[in-house]
Amino acid sequence: MTETPVPEIHAAWLPPVVFRALGSRRVRVDGEGPLAGTVRAEVADACARFGGVAQPSSPPDLLLTVAASGGAAGSEGFLLGHRDGATVVLADGPAGLLPGFFEVVRRGEAAFDPGLADERHEPHFGLRVLDHWDNVFVHPVMGQVERGYAGGSLFWHQGRLRDDLTRVRDYARLLAASGVNAVTVNNVNVHEGETHLLTDRLGEVAAIASTFRGYGIRVHLAINFAAPVILGDLPTADPLDPAVRRWWSDTTDRVFATIPDFGGYLVKADSEGQPGPFTYGRTHADGANMLAAALAPHDAPVRWRAFVYNHRQDWRDRTTDRARAAHDHFAPLDGRFAGNVILQVKHGPMDFQPREPVSPVLFAMPNTRLAVELQVTQEYTGQQKHVCYLPPMWSGVLGFRPTGDASAADSGRTSAVVLSAVANAGDDRFWTGHPLAQANLYAVGRLGWAPGRDPAAILDEWISLTFPDAPPRLRRTLHTVMDGSWLTYEQYTAPLGVGFMVRPGHHYGPDVDGYEYTPWGTYHFADRDGIGVDRTVATGTGFTGQYPPPWRDRYESLSTCPDELLLFFHHVPYTHVLQSGTTVIQHIYDTHFAGAQRVAEMRAQWRSVAGLVDPAVHARVTERLAEQHRSAEEWRDQINTYFHRKSGIPDAKGRPIH
Amino acid sequence: MTETPVPEIHAAWLPPVVFRALGSRRVRVDGEGPLAGTVRAEVADACARFGGVAQPSSPPDLLLTVAASGGAAGSEGFLLGHRDGATVVLADGPAGLLPGFFEVVRRGEAAFDPGLADERHEPHFGLRVLDHWDNVFVHPVMGQVERGYAGGSLFWHQGRLRDDLTRVRDYARLLAASGVNAVTVNNVNVHEGETHLLTDRLGEVAAIASTFRGYGIRVHLAINFAAPVILGDLPTADPLDPAVRRWWSDTTDRVFATIPDFGGYLVKADSEGQPGPFTYGRTHADGANMLAAALAPHDAPVRWRAFVYNHRQDWRDRTTDRARAAHDHFAPLDGRFAGNVILQVKHGPMDFQPREPVSPVLFAMPNTRLAVELQVTQEYTGQQKHVCYLPPMWSGVLGFRPTGDASAADSGRTSAVVLSAVANAGDDRFWTGHPLAQANLYAVGRLGWAPGRDPAAILDEWISLTFPDAPPRLRRTLHTVMDGSWLTYEQYTAPLGVGFMVRPGHHYGPDVDGYEYTPWGTYHFADRDGIGVDRTVATGTGFTGQYPPPWRDRYESLSTCPDELLLFFHHVPYTHVLQSGTTVIQHIYDTHFAGAQRVAEMRAQWRSVAGLVDPAVHARVTERLAEQHRSAEEWRDQINTYFHRKSGIPDAKGRPIH
Repeated sequence: MTETPVPEIHAAWLPPVVFRALGSRRVRVDGEGPLAGTVRAEVADACARFGGVAQPSSPPDLLLTVAASGGAAGSEGFLLGHRDGATVVLADGPAGLLPGFFEVVRRGEAAFDPGLADERHEPHFGLRVLDHWDNVFVHPVMGQVERGYAGGSLFWHQGRLRDDLTRVRDYARLLAASGVNAVTVNNVNVHEGETHLLTDRLGEVAAIASTFRGYGIRVHLAINFAAPVILGDLPTADPLDPAVRRWWSDTTDRVFATIPDFGGYLVKADSEGQPGPFTYGRTHADGANMLAAALAPHDAPVRWRAFVYNHRQDWRDRTTDRARAAHDHFAPLDGRFAGNVILQVKHGPMDFQPREPVSPVLFAMPNTRLAVELQVTQEYTGQQKHVCYLPPMWSGVLGFRPTGDASAADSGRTSAVVLSAVANAGDDRFWTGHPLAQANLYAVGRLGWAPGRDPAAILDEWISLTFPDAPPRLRRTLHTVMDGSWLTYEQYTAPLGVGFMVRPGHHYGPDVDGYEYTPWGTYHFADRDGIGVDRTVATGTGFTGQYPPPWRDRYESLSTCPDELLLFFHHVPYTHVLQSGTTVIQHIYDTHFAGAQRVAEMRAQWRSVAGLVDPAVHARVTERLAEQHRSAEEWRDQINTYFHRKSGIPDAKGRPIH
Repeated sequence: MTETPVPEIHAAWLPPVVFRALGSRRVRVDGEGPLAGTVRAEVADACARFGGVAQPSSPPDLLLTVAASGGAAGSEGFLLGHRDGATVVLADGPAGLLPGFFEVVRRGEAAFDPGLADERHEPHFGLRVLDHWDNVFVHPVMGQVERGYAGGSLFWHQGRLRDDLTRVRDYARLLAASGVNAVTVNNVNVHEGETHLLTDRLGEVAAIASTFRGYGIRVHLAINFAAPVILGDLPTADPLDPAVRRWWSDTTDRVFATIPDFGGYLVKADSEGQPGPFTYGRTHADGANMLAAALAPHDAPVRWRAFVYNHRQDWRDRTTDRARAAHDHFAPLDGRFAGNVILQVKHGPMDFQPREPVSPVLFAMPNTRLAVELQVTQEYTGQQKHVCYLPPMWSGVLGFRPTGDASAADSGRTSAVVLSAVANAGDDRFWTGHPLAQANLYAVGRLGWAPGRDPAAILDEWISLTFPDAPPRLRRTLHTVMDGSWLTYEQYTAPLGVGFMVRPGHHYGPDVDGYEYTPWGTYHFADRDGIGVDRTVATGTGFTGQYPPPWRDRYESLSTCPDELLLFFHHVPYTHVLQSGTTVIQHIYDTHFAGAQRVAEMRAQWRSVAGLVDPAVHARVTERLAEQHRSAEEWRDQINTYFHRKSGIPDAKGRPIH
């Protein structure tokens, strides 16, 4: 078994030069423990490279230290300010030194402005976790990384842990610099081989955890609910069975004996074929609470996914609505989950489509700790072949006010305490396949600290770090190409929130009817007269009723439903006039021509900066943009042709439809 | 590497009891050589079982002998008659003894009727070959047998030749009893591993050939056109390159040195990604003639497949027509192929759909030796989950008169000299997955001998052999369930000859638009007003012009085009009235309700004979009929719903459409 050699790995948002401002100064790091040690080593490296002085005997230009009046031991918060001619990071505790350090790095010279006013930094979400869908063994259908578009796993290769974990360390450093503090190392669809990570292959998890530990990142494990049967030779995995509970308790104790700072479990149960408590006539609360009991002595959580629905639906049955499923399953269980259970809810009610309403579950369970789950890997958003900068979408989710009032207090927003995201990195030399998809990965941690932050500002920050010496023209071009790319992607794919219309299985490229007659519960109901899913209380599936007012009423009424979600909530004629003043059919034509045209422009814009970018980066992006352009035109033509054939209504502008 | 144990193998159409009439008599076999030896051994077995006398000293009841005035040495012909109180088989040569023997077996007691009039038997097609699409190695997408629905390969297991070739011998015996005289052992898509069968793994082919030899069956090999590059380390596979020609000549000499009665090559070139002469700017005649030259000294043929088309077509381009491709490619080459080239033509212009017109190539190349290729494996006809007795379709192909006149001489039919068929057998205990699919396999050889034979008579013959002691009710039920099953399958799948509408990739189950926007050239062009492909000369792709008159005119005109091919040749409104008097849309509804209903009846009929059939056979067929019923209802509902949504025209009978 030889590991394939990798070409030079891209530095992503930590090229050496971003350490110049800090590395050319005198920097002192106070504090004990491994995290302080990591910061000291980083400072030493930077100073060695740029002529600064680490741990100077004279007064420093930058002091990183743990504040005497620190907060909780595990707190990552810190104060950034200026004291006695020096920039200071006053961390609440040892865990705040590293975030403070990277805050200074990100700022560059600006961090040393004597006019720097005090700023208090504290993460909004205490847990900011990337869930890797990595398999140990290459899955015959899903490959090594499920929905992975960036090569193989960073952790495993040919069925075994990589001998060389250097890239894992580099990855940990990148994540720390972005604000992430946890990683789940394996796929939520836990196949038999991966089930063993919990017990006889736990050593591999421990090795990975050691590599992440220096950067303040804890390792979580996705577990198989049937593990007591598969691994423990028990006849059942019934969560109320004492032997099963003991098995989980003993097994979990062994995990913590091996990995004292182990992060917790992640579970996909009773979903898409995975085992779960339903097998034993138990509730999801029973299942989650059993694992919570095993984890409680170690003060660690179990994240239990709310992605539960009937994936064997009869397409003929218009009363069943997959969008309702999570709320139907979980809202009645509010208050019945243990305190260390975190219910992990996909941000939309379906499955990571480019446009969905926010999941009503996020506002329906005040007595349950929630995680909101984003998908960084671009399963439905171009699979890292298309530029699709996702933070504007995520911002909409994280900033959604269930009260409907933009001026309401923040407390009105989702009460989720955890931000989780399905990872998009692999052993690709650019980490994410598409170099520009690094920005999505970068943004997770940044939004995890400050969900209200402007996505465009995060983008510019990422550009400044990743292309540190870029002239303004390149920065502007990158911003232009990326900032609106999610809306562009939406324009040329499924219209007005109706979703899916992708090729079944791999989910890339258009197939309008691909899921229309399948058991997956993802339909558009287009006929010769109209399209859309009636999810109203009045005449449809009643899904709108899962929202608090005023959203239930806004979505319920054709006259107030936002255009971009119209077909998610309503079935309308093609001639229905949108709030925008155009008809549904003309909107379809217009957006699809515009979207494909915009990709052509993006290509031209990228071409124009050829001389300003690392040739390897430019070549990779160029190649991906060519495919995006081809794909966008394919989407445009299939969607337009499909609806023209069905509606018979010509494009008002007479453009070519096949 | 252990081979998986197989349960008791089904006897198919050679259960011991069918040898009773012969085995209870005195039987003499004259003649020399291995084939006479095979017949003698068969006779000895039968007589030992049923009390007859093999090679009696007294005058026999049955004499099998080579006629003094025999025909060509390799002739398989024979005369069956009655002489001096005995039934006699007078074979033209040693190769006719075995077919004569099985003719007697098939007749049972009737063969010993003293009133038996002389009958001359001679195969219509000199070569009757089953092409196995077996891979040596399991292909990651296609599995071990491409489009195989009956388990693994009879020849290879886990990448190596099976140690035990007993089943291959049994298979050879079954084929001989049905009239087949050749087998291609490997897939026409020759992957790298299988390419080696030609050289360093030739010993495996020789072992298979030895096993088939005793039953008069020769072995052919599908070869990779790029073999000189892959195996020979040559820089090119250019068919006009002297080194390449020498390589093929030397390699072929070695094949015949190892297997003196080797049958010949089969080639899929420049098709669906396979290499071919186009790579080198050469014609298919150049490619085929090179291989023919290598084979000529050994008096063996190369079969060159005419299945060449653009599989990267732009669906937006309505001028390209895949149906035209074989004729466009090959008709201009008529007369340019060497005498031992056989151009192998799929029976229809597309790809083994349940209903296609006969390929015009079969009548366009009077100066070329042709093979007509059937597909016994049910790729598009229910994948051996559905009962679909195919000989009525094949009969239509083999009996098609290009002159259009049913009373014209037989010479007017296809001049093909070879009948080839893609095999449907595997290591399944019933050989073909669905026990009733054995009848399709059986019929290949029978039609190869006598293409004009009534498919219903072949069916009854197969029933009599396979269920030898069946009471009349069971025979009637089998006949009823099977005889019209192809038309039933057609009823509930794609309507009126339009084809495809299957799930891309695996080709099972409905997906009306599955191929509509793909590069495969298989479209229906359904819109809200109508459906079908305009292939007329007047307004369409001109495909009808590839037929001789009167067919070109019959197909060209809406008023004379047969209903069952209407949408293959014409794009018509849903309200178009068929020759049958009903509209296209109502025909779609009616046939789909009727087809699914008929499957329900077939299930009931099969249930009613539960006590009359071997329980294992009954159980397997029952299980498959349940799936066929589910699938037929799925087809019915998807097709009806699709066209109802598109046309807006209700079912005149008000039946449920979703």
